[in-house]
Amino acid sequence: MAQVYLAVDLGGTRIRAARCRAEGTIEARTEVFTQADQGVEAVIARIESAVRSMWPTTSDTTAAIGLVAPGPIDPWTGVILTAPNLPGMVNLPLRDRLGDIFNVPVFIGNDANLAGLAEWRFGAARGYTDMVYLTVSTGIGGGVVSNGRLLLGSRGLAAELGHITIDRTDGVCNCGNVGCLEWLASGTAIVRQIVERLRDGEPSRIADLVHGDLDALNVEVVAQAALQGDAVATAVLNKSLRALGLGVTSLLHMFNPSIVVIGGGVSNLGARLFDSVRATVKQHVMDPRYICPIVPAHLSGDVGLLGALALALDPPPQRQA
Amino acid sequence: MAQVYLAVDLGGTRIRAARCRAEGTIEARTEVFTQADQGVEAVIARIESAVRSMWPTTSDTTAAIGLVAPGPIDPWTGVILTAPNLPGMVNLPLRDRLGDIFNVPVFIGNDANLAGLAEWRFGAARGYTDMVYLTVSTGIGGGVVSNGRLLLGSRGLAAELGHITIDRTDGVCNCGNVGCLEWLASGTAIVRQIVERLRDGEPSRIADLVHGDLDALNVEVVAQAALQGDAVATAVLNKSLRALGLGVTSLLHMFNPSIVVIGGGVSNLGARLFDSVRATVKQHVMDPRYICPIVPAHLSGDVGLLGALALALDPPPQRQA
Repeated sequence: MAQVYLAVDLGGTRIRAARCRAEGTIEARTEVFTQADQGVEAVIARIESAVRSMWPTTSDTTAAIGLVAPGPIDPWTGVILTAPNLPGMVNLPLRDRLGDIFNVPVFIGNDANLAGLAEWRFGAARGYTDMVYLTVSTGIGGGVVSNGRLLLGSRGLAAELGHITIDRTDGVCNCGNVGCLEWLASGTAIVRQIVERLRDGEPSRIADLVHGDLDALNVEVVAQAALQGDAVATAVLNKSLRALGLGVTSLLHMFNPSIVVIGGGVSNLGARLFDSVRATVKQHVMDPRYICPIVPAHLSGDVGLLGALALALDPPPQRQA
Repeated sequence: MAQVYLAVDLGGTRIRAARCRAEGTIEARTEVFTQADQGVEAVIARIESAVRSMWPTTSDTTAAIGLVAPGPIDPWTGVILTAPNLPGMVNLPLRDRLGDIFNVPVFIGNDANLAGLAEWRFGAARGYTDMVYLTVSTGIGGGVVSNGRLLLGSRGLAAELGHITIDRTDGVCNCGNVGCLEWLASGTAIVRQIVERLRDGEPSRIADLVHGDLDALNVEVVAQAALQGDAVATAVLNKSLRALGLGVTSLLHMFNPSIVVIGGGVSNLGARLFDSVRATVKQHVMDPRYICPIVPAHLSGDVGLLGALALALDPPPQRQA
């Protein structure tokens, strides 16, 4: 009789669930559409059904359920405070709801934080004591492990690494803060800056690459144009990646990690991104002792499930008085 | 027979030592000039003599010695890596040197980090689980307590809160990074910006306040000029305090503290500073859940000694594997 862990990745589009082993293997999985528009109770019913379909039918027992969800979550009470893309999920005590149904310990955490925890436990940062994880995608999220523990802050809202001001002279981010890293260096930010320059009439072949349909623009197209020597694409990429490098430099000064892991769609730029970030760090870090490996994430599509597993294996300790 | 703790505050100008009780009381103290120009061994001899003069002569026993020093220190080995204003102190195993002399446990830490720890243990942040401490003076330093522990990072270099980029379009900080909080909002930064504007010929009565001697300019004079309606003083103060507010906003997003404590000479601006920082935070924080008290430091001249005491009472745990 062995112990298994059930992991749930609750997203705006899909609910994924899996049966996992402590060492990080996924032995069964399922996936359904979230259909958040049908309301909170319908979503909870779909989570219940997905978890039930993963329940062990052998002599194995379920040790715990871990669940990741977007947006702010109280990691100690398992209450989803709000969830972008999941309308109606406000102050939802999802941990207790699932605990009542399944009668095993349930732990709930924020998706970006736990993607970091997954990389630390099972991926690129295995064996490091102090990690900064960034996911650079449509937005920029993060997770920090400090001396072997996930940094949560007083209300579980720490490590919003995309929302640090890098340029007080730039525009206001969706979050309300000024010149955030996300506003300057996310995939959305790269596309926005390209569109602005095209609208200003700067000559570029980017529009041709998407047959004039700027809505089809994405970071891959921008990278392709830059490779072909397009001046607008090159300028925007350089500027955005420099902002990312300055953001990482600030994070080194703040957290002094032993490794930085960067994931998310924009990190598929590969050497173009990592070489640029490393060069900016090297140029601007206050002391060479801060320099550490800056590496791509290892886990891709399963990072949510593995984050949920990592949480179930190692839930946050009680808060200090 | 009671236990006492000996605290040492090693600075570029003065060595201070004290005999303390665990509850934070200082029952005896001494102070000598550092005379760092006489070399490292002479400084160590003066530390030894200061500590010896504080040694209990009653039946009390010395439980431990705590020492704060400027610059990067390895908090686990007690090696001073480098120390600004203490020439020659490079890779100095001061913990072991003092341990060999006094044969009690010795703990050594960074002054800004431990000023934060002192405020957390004995001052403005007592009872809070998660604190961000900023000292705004000639430079900007910091300390972070996360879930009841000082944030150290992988090499003990974390929480350099003055060296996060706030404005990528601004100048290069002394540290080598671009547009740091310290570069924009320290006392030195405020004076520098005033001098630049005066040299550019902007009309101001500030020069009169220091009888034409711009070397005599300091933040108090700038504040006085602003109170009298001086446009240059008002503009520079507003801009610098806004940078400080944006810095604090980033720190809230990063660490989600339950309290922010601001000390250092520039915090003597009082309501002018705190009202401005709170207003910027309120305007730009990404979610009202991040808002927490932003308060002045309580401990003034003794913050170094109390930081050394706090360290001796609660040294950092061993690093996770």
